[in-house]
Amino acid sequence: MRYIFTNVIGTFVFDQNMNKIDSVLNTTKEVADRDAIEKQLIEKHGELTSVPQEMWAQLLENFKDEKYFSIFVKEDTKLTRQNIKLSISEDLLVTQTIANFSELDKIINTLTKRLREWYGLYLPEFEHIDMNQEKFVELVFDKNKKKLLQEFKIDEKSSMGADLDEIHVQEMKFLAKRIISLIELRTEHEKYLQTVMKKYCPNLLELGGVTISAKLLELSKGLKRLALLPASTIQLLGAEKALFRHIKTGSRSPKHGIIIQHPIVQNARRNLRGKMARRLADKLSLCARLDYFKGEFKAPEYKEELEKELEKQKALRKLKASKNN
Amino acid sequence: MRYIFTNVIGTFVFDQNMNKIDSVLNTTKEVADRDAIEKQLIEKHGELTSVPQEMWAQLLENFKDEKYFSIFVKEDTKLTRQNIKLSISEDLLVTQTIANFSELDKIINTLTKRLREWYGLYLPEFEHIDMNQEKFVELVFDKNKKKLLQEFKIDEKSSMGADLDEIHVQEMKFLAKRIISLIELRTEHEKYLQTVMKKYCPNLLELGGVTISAKLLELSKGLKRLALLPASTIQLLGAEKALFRHIKTGSRSPKHGIIIQHPIVQNARRNLRGKMARRLADKLSLCARLDYFKGEFKAPEYKEELEKELEKQKALRKLKASKNN
Repeated sequence: MRYIFTNVIGTFVFDQNMNKIDSVLNTTKEVADRDAIEKQLIEKHGELTSVPQEMWAQLLENFKDEKYFSIFVKEDTKLTRQNIKLSISEDLLVTQTIANFSELDKIINTLTKRLREWYGLYLPEFEHIDMNQEKFVELVFDKNKKKLLQEFKIDEKSSMGADLDEIHVQEMKFLAKRIISLIELRTEHEKYLQTVMKKYCPNLLELGGVTISAKLLELSKGLKRLALLPASTIQLLGAEKALFRHIKTGSRSPKHGIIIQHPIVQNARRNLRGKMARRLADKLSLCARLDYFKGEFKAPEYKEELEKELEKQKALRKLKASKNN
Repeated sequence: MRYIFTNVIGTFVFDQNMNKIDSVLNTTKEVADRDAIEKQLIEKHGELTSVPQEMWAQLLENFKDEKYFSIFVKEDTKLTRQNIKLSISEDLLVTQTIANFSELDKIINTLTKRLREWYGLYLPEFEHIDMNQEKFVELVFDKNKKKLLQEFKIDEKSSMGADLDEIHVQEMKFLAKRIISLIELRTEHEKYLQTVMKKYCPNLLELGGVTISAKLLELSKGLKRLALLPASTIQLLGAEKALFRHIKTGSRSPKHGIIIQHPIVQNARRNLRGKMARRLADKLSLCARLDYFKGEFKAPEYKEELEKELEKQKALRKLKASKNN
C-alpha cells in the first residue's frame, strides 16, 4: 500500500509506514501542474491512494524537517498573493463604478442647483424655466444661448438681473464647464458598465438594462448574492424603507422597488403593476442565476414572454372597453 | 403761496388751492435729473414750498386723472426693475462663490475617497499611504507615477492588486481627471474671491485672509449683518454647536469658532488662544464695519498690533522660563 499526498510545497509518495519514498517540490514546477505531477508519480509507482484521516498525524511528522520551513513560507506567501489577486473580480469593479455613478448623480444635482441660483442673479428670467440640467448648464456656458434666448423670448438687455462684469459671469462659466465634464463622466461610466456587464452578466443586462441592473447589483452587493436572493426579494430591492414601514406599522406592503423604473412595469396599467413587477423579478432572478453559473443567454426569450403578457393585458382591456360600450 | 411736488411720474407746481399750474413729466427726462428739474421750476416760479401733510388728500385728487394711469404703471415698473437690478450687490455674488467653495471641498473629498477605494483594487499598496488628495489623484492620472512608485518603493509588477485590462484602469483615470479639474475650480474660486473682496471688503480680507473672511461672510449671511454683529458673536461664528451644548448642558463655553484657523490664534500658546481669539474678533468686527460703511483701510495697523501682542507674549514666556532656571 502506497500513499500520495499533495500540499503547498509539493507532491509526496509514502509507503505504508509513512516514510517518504518520492517527492516533487513545487519550487521546480508551477502549482497549476499538480495534476500532471500526480499522474506522473502514479505511472512511476503504480496504484497510489490518498492518506486516510487517521494517519494524518503520522504523515505530518514528515514535514517537521527544518529544510521545508523556508519553502513553506515562500510558497504560502505566493499562494496568498495569488488568491488576493484573483479575488478581485469584475464584481468589485462594477460595484465601484455603480457607486460612483450614483454619487455623480447627486453631485451633478447639487452643483446645478447652485448654478441656477447663482446665474439667477445675472439672468433671473431663466431661473424657473423648466429645462433639463444639461440644457441649462450649456446655456450658462454660452452654448445655444442665443437660440434659447429666442426660444423663451427673453431680451438679455432688458433683464431684471444685475449688469455684471465679465469677471463675475466668468466664474459661473467655470462652474458650468465642470458640470458638463461631470455629466460626460457619467456617460463614460454608463458605456463602461455596458461593456463590462455584457461579459459579466449578459442576461441581466439584456433584460434589465444597464441602469436597473447596475442598481440591483449595488443593492444586492454583487452578482453572487443577487443570484442567491429569492425573486420576491429582488422585486422589493430599493423599497426597504416602505417594507420596514409595512412590517412595523402595518401600512400597505410595497409592490416594487427599483424595478418600477423598468418599461415592463412602467407600461403596465396601474393596478397590474404589482403583478408585472413580480413576473419581471422572477425573470431577473433567473437571469442573475444564469449569469452567475455561466449558463445560456436566455434573456431575449424572457423579454419576449413579458412583452407578450403586456400585449395580452392591453388586448383584454380593449375587449372589456368595447363590451362596456 | 405756491407748492412743488415730485413723484414717480414727474414734478408738479400747484397754487394755494392745489390746482396744477405747471409740470415736467419724467417720461421726457431721466429720473436722476430730478434735482435739476426742481431747480429749474423754482427759478421759473419763484419761491416754492413742499406740500404740507394736511393738504395731501387734496393734492392727490389731481392724480385721479386717467391720463396719468398708464404713465404711473410704466414708471413704477421701470423703478422696480431698477431697484431689483441694483439690489444684487457683490454680497450675493461672494456668498454664492463661498457656498460653492465649501460644497466643492465636500465633493472633492467624496470623490477622492471613492477613487482611493477603487484604485485600491489595482494598486492596493497606495491605498493607505499618507499623501495629500491632489498628489494621489495625480498618481492615478499617471502624473508622477514613476516617481511615486520609486519614492514609496513599490514594485508595480509584484503588486497584490489585480492585473486589470486598460479598459478598467481607464475608468479610474477618467474620474481622476474630473477631480483634478474640480480642484482647479476651487483655486479659481479662491482667486476670484480675492479679487472681488479686495474691492468689496479690503479690511476684512487683509486681516482675515480669503478663506476665513469668506467663511465669516457665509456664516453671518453677508457683510451688512457681519458689520452689525457684536465682536463676541464673531468670535464664536462656526462654533454654534459647542455654544448651544454649553447653554443646554453647562459644558465649557467655546472660545473660538472659525477664527481658530487664523495664524494669530494658531500661533498663540494654548492657554492664551481664547484671549487672542477675542482680540482678533474685535479687530475683525472693526474691519467689517469699516468695509460696510466705506471707511479707511486700517487693517494693516490692526494686524501689526495683534502681531506685536503675540511677540510680547512670547517674550514674556521666555523671560519666565529663564527666571525659573
